[in-house]
Amino acid sequence: MPKQYLSLRNIQFLLYEVHQATSICQYAYYGEHNKEIFDMVLGSAKQLADKYLHPYLTEMDRKPPYYENGQIYVHQQIKQLMKLYGDGGWISATSSYEEGGQQLPIILSNLSGFIFGAANYSASVFPFLSTGASNLIRNFGSQELKDTFIPKMYAGEWQGTMALTEPQAGSSLSDVQTTASPTESGHYLIKGQKIFISAGDHDAVENVVHLLLARIKGAPAGVKGISLFVVPKKRVVKEGVAPNDVITAGMYHKMGYKGAPIAHLIFGEHEDCHGYLVGEPHKGLNYMFQMMNEARLAVGMSAVSIASAAYYASLEYAKERPQGRTFHAKNPLEPQVAIIEHPDIRRMLLFQKAIVEGSLSLLMQCSLYADLEKVNTGETKERYALLLDLLTPVAKSYPSEMAIQTTSVAIQCLGGYGYLEDFTPEQFFRDTRIHPIHEGTTGIQGLDLLGRKVIMHEGRAMSIFLEEIRLTLLSVPSLSTLRVRKHELAEASQHLQAITMHLVDFIKEGNVEKALADATLYLEYFGIIAIAWQWLKQGLVAEKALESSNLSEEDYNFYQGKMLGAQYFFEYEIPKIRGLHERLESSYTLTPTMKSAYLV
Amino acid sequence: MPKQYLSLRNIQFLLYEVHQATSICQYAYYGEHNKEIFDMVLGSAKQLADKYLHPYLTEMDRKPPYYENGQIYVHQQIKQLMKLYGDGGWISATSSYEEGGQQLPIILSNLSGFIFGAANYSASVFPFLSTGASNLIRNFGSQELKDTFIPKMYAGEWQGTMALTEPQAGSSLSDVQTTASPTESGHYLIKGQKIFISAGDHDAVENVVHLLLARIKGAPAGVKGISLFVVPKKRVVKEGVAPNDVITAGMYHKMGYKGAPIAHLIFGEHEDCHGYLVGEPHKGLNYMFQMMNEARLAVGMSAVSIASAAYYASLEYAKERPQGRTFHAKNPLEPQVAIIEHPDIRRMLLFQKAIVEGSLSLLMQCSLYADLEKVNTGETKERYALLLDLLTPVAKSYPSEMAIQTTSVAIQCLGGYGYLEDFTPEQFFRDTRIHPIHEGTTGIQGLDLLGRKVIMHEGRAMSIFLEEIRLTLLSVPSLSTLRVRKHELAEASQHLQAITMHLVDFIKEGNVEKALADATLYLEYFGIIAIAWQWLKQGLVAEKALESSNLSEEDYNFYQGKMLGAQYFFEYEIPKIRGLHERLESSYTLTPTMKSAYLV
Repeated sequence: MPKQYLSLRNIQFLLYEVHQATSICQYAYYGEHNKEIFDMVLGSAKQLADKYLHPYLTEMDRKPPYYENGQIYVHQQIKQLMKLYGDGGWISATSSYEEGGQQLPIILSNLSGFIFGAANYSASVFPFLSTGASNLIRNFGSQELKDTFIPKMYAGEWQGTMALTEPQAGSSLSDVQTTASPTESGHYLIKGQKIFISAGDHDAVENVVHLLLARIKGAPAGVKGISLFVVPKKRVVKEGVAPNDVITAGMYHKMGYKGAPIAHLIFGEHEDCHGYLVGEPHKGLNYMFQMMNEARLAVGMSAVSIASAAYYASLEYAKERPQGRTFHAKNPLEPQVAIIEHPDIRRMLLFQKAIVEGSLSLLMQCSLYADLEKVNTGETKERYALLLDLLTPVAKSYPSEMAIQTTSVAIQCLGGYGYLEDFTPEQFFRDTRIHPIHEGTTGIQGLDLLGRKVIMHEGRAMSIFLEEIRLTLLSVPSLSTLRVRKHELAEASQHLQAITMHLVDFIKEGNVEKALADATLYLEYFGIIAIAWQWLKQGLVAEKALESSNLSEEDYNFYQGKMLGAQYFFEYEIPKIRGLHERLESSYTLTPTMKSAYLV
Repeated sequence: MPKQYLSLRNIQFLLYEVHQATSICQYAYYGEHNKEIFDMVLGSAKQLADKYLHPYLTEMDRKPPYYENGQIYVHQQIKQLMKLYGDGGWISATSSYEEGGQQLPIILSNLSGFIFGAANYSASVFPFLSTGASNLIRNFGSQELKDTFIPKMYAGEWQGTMALTEPQAGSSLSDVQTTASPTESGHYLIKGQKIFISAGDHDAVENVVHLLLARIKGAPAGVKGISLFVVPKKRVVKEGVAPNDVITAGMYHKMGYKGAPIAHLIFGEHEDCHGYLVGEPHKGLNYMFQMMNEARLAVGMSAVSIASAAYYASLEYAKERPQGRTFHAKNPLEPQVAIIEHPDIRRMLLFQKAIVEGSLSLLMQCSLYADLEKVNTGETKERYALLLDLLTPVAKSYPSEMAIQTTSVAIQCLGGYGYLEDFTPEQFFRDTRIHPIHEGTTGIQGLDLLGRKVIMHEGRAMSIFLEEIRLTLLSVPSLSTLRVRKHELAEASQHLQAITMHLVDFIKEGNVEKALADATLYLEYFGIIAIAWQWLKQGLVAEKALESSNLSEEDYNFYQGKMLGAQYFFEYEIPKIRGLHERLESSYTLTPTMKSAYLV
């Protein structure tokens, strides 16, 4: 098992030096926090991860949950973990003090997710799902629902889930068919099936609380007729809890991410499944989207976390494994060198570093926007809300797609050993493949970005985003070694703006299919620009730090590594937009107009 | 299990219409073959694959070989398969009639590998390894070695292997340390360890014959002191066979490609392991490279074959799975459409098709060059030898790297189901990940292409390759709808030539590190051009066929699909060279000069 799976130094660099996140402590809501508390939170998360998550990384993959007699059984470590997550306040971290939470900044809570995910992704999802589900009850539920469910979920005693997907619907939520029939007692009777429900059932908790989408009888068709319900596995009765006619019909066997059980659930087979309406009828999808947006950032964060673990595993190997000689020392009698001395291995390591640290920075940027949205009002609030809305599909998808490549490259660094179960990269490669799928596929994110986000409010979010980039460009000192990168990013973002207008024009003309046919490629393009922006930010901070004459060797190497990461991204990744631009600009229409019958 | 894993129609299109491979029957050596025999061979291969390989695809993954008491046990189906491979003449296919073979064209033998690989990759490697090993004995071994080993290997009774890799050496063959000590009886005593030996031991055969690299005591250091030996698991004695002090120390547990056992072997632990020199001393690496080059094409072929199976699995799913509606029909009361109607799904399917059919065409092109090299003499022979030499690293690596992406996209087409063990794409994604690693990593292929192949004989191979492309360009009719693609390929190959000269200049200046630092990217660039060339060829044939007025609907759709594939490749893949060009042209040096300590 590799020793390192993330760099706390890097997290602190991004948090304090690049994003200056302690500035949010000037707002009253976060007034009781400061850098010491931030460090303490990160330290505690790391300690928990080191001791209770990372040691079980491989074991949870090899001994996955199993399904027996209508019940899913998970690795026994999950039980202890749920208690630790609850006792440590990790599930309630971002809730206010009055609500029994820690009132922790979102950026810190998301970083704890990063730390847990890098240590053991499967084990990290349980508390996160409870947080998301309890947030929905907290924000939109009645006081009774809050009192009944939230304390147990915060304590890690009950598991929260989001139950959206149905066999016939998948990504098409307008086709949700689960029904809710009102009763005179106030509750609804739920009937239907849900599939792919993460942590949808397991034996490490006493109860499972589903935040479920269903249609109230008589509701309009499509997304406008979907309501949100709390549907527990066991409902609360006077004597405690009693079965609520929620049947676990099975568990899915996955390629990776094996430690977390994904369930197939049947609700109301015996007409006795009680559900409790959250908020108003027919507004379920709006409510759910709040959770979904948080979840999308979390997915991006998880993808980066796995990529981080793979990067350090391959880096450690590359530093220790002797093989071959440099181009200038081909004498076979000379000792072999560590493979990190070979340019191609370095390229593969830098690729991983550039993607991991660039993506993490973007996700922290988004998290900070979420915090700033939370503590501000009026126009300022709206500005951050728009930035967050715009960047969420990018921050979800870029890391998810790229982590497939970076974990693959981690395997490649180990050569034949990388393909073996004895080393961790192959598990990371399997684990991370879920991310472009769950919480909205990459295809869906592309449509969301180009078909909705860049055009909303007449393109205001896009304008603000480009403004944010310009602010970074303006901060580049005239003598900086990064000034050529400044010009490259300026040019690239102008190209992005041009191609955006080009595509949006098709939408305005009503040629939606032409506009959106390559939305996935547009999303990739956008992602590269966003990460380049984050790398320029990091490079500028590192360059300034390197001006100091009394850096420790460790700090000196760290900042030089940051300069390398920035230079790598501009030399190797930014050029990829050229091809994307050429395609997106092309007038040649292929996929919207072709006949499916030609695909043989 | 998906019904289709390859398209025979496509194979025949490439074989007869694009590459006109029956033209080789005009050479005396292949004079007894004709189109009917070609079709019969393909049909038999497909039948064998349908009946004896494909049904065991999943099962061989779920019940992998196991190691017990010094012996590896494989799936029981392998035993029957080895007999079928032997009886059907698949192992000896390309050997001459006199040698007991079928004298089959290499292109047909390689296509049988494609068919077997698409049906069940793990089960397909056993005969291929025997062919390679027996070819070495046949070409370089003594008559006694031939008589002793080849008939049993051809019959599928004994397994052949290539035993190169050692724990301390990996890709660095100059560091091979296994020793061979001459004895007065003529044989050598072998001592050493070999790792990652494919089919290195299993119970479906009576004996395993290793073609092994070792150093004769006193040999020069480096690659010039390596000799080739036949080292059987059991040696032939008067009474039959007897143990030869070859110990199976263990078996590797891999992420995929699980049906084939990869062994760790110890030779001569008890000083009683007999090895038989093949050819002359110290020439082992040259001999082995003959096998390795065949093996590299076979790896490319296997990568395409898995990608083919994944393509058809996702195509089948996309045609059957209803979900969502088109952009213009958002009424939730309308029925859902099959997901193949969504542009992004079509893009993902076309991507797979373009890579699979483009790569298969290139591999067939290379196979044809191998046949033409075999049957010609003098300058013509050399021309084909050079083309094959140049293109081998490309034909090995492009499909190997791209199949990671195409199988990943196949998963994506299935959404959440793609991540489940219940569907085949996840296995294909795991299986194909071996290909950029074995038989020389992608990094090694890049160095081979740029550091050796394009500069050998003063760049002659490269000139001939560009000439071949020009010949295709000249064949484009002036009114063809593909004439814009003609200009794009002309321009792209000029760029390739320019960047090649740019990089080779660094080599000439002695700045080898600068030249080769991004050899992997150069290899990718070269691959894209080579596949575009193959797609232009296919498009031209399809365009001409579509001129006919009495095509069946099936043929019409097939040829239209080919036009789509060609257009897709030029619209979506060719643009990728822009970014690669920009990087390869950049004067900014990163990986050769940086300090490893900065990677933290």
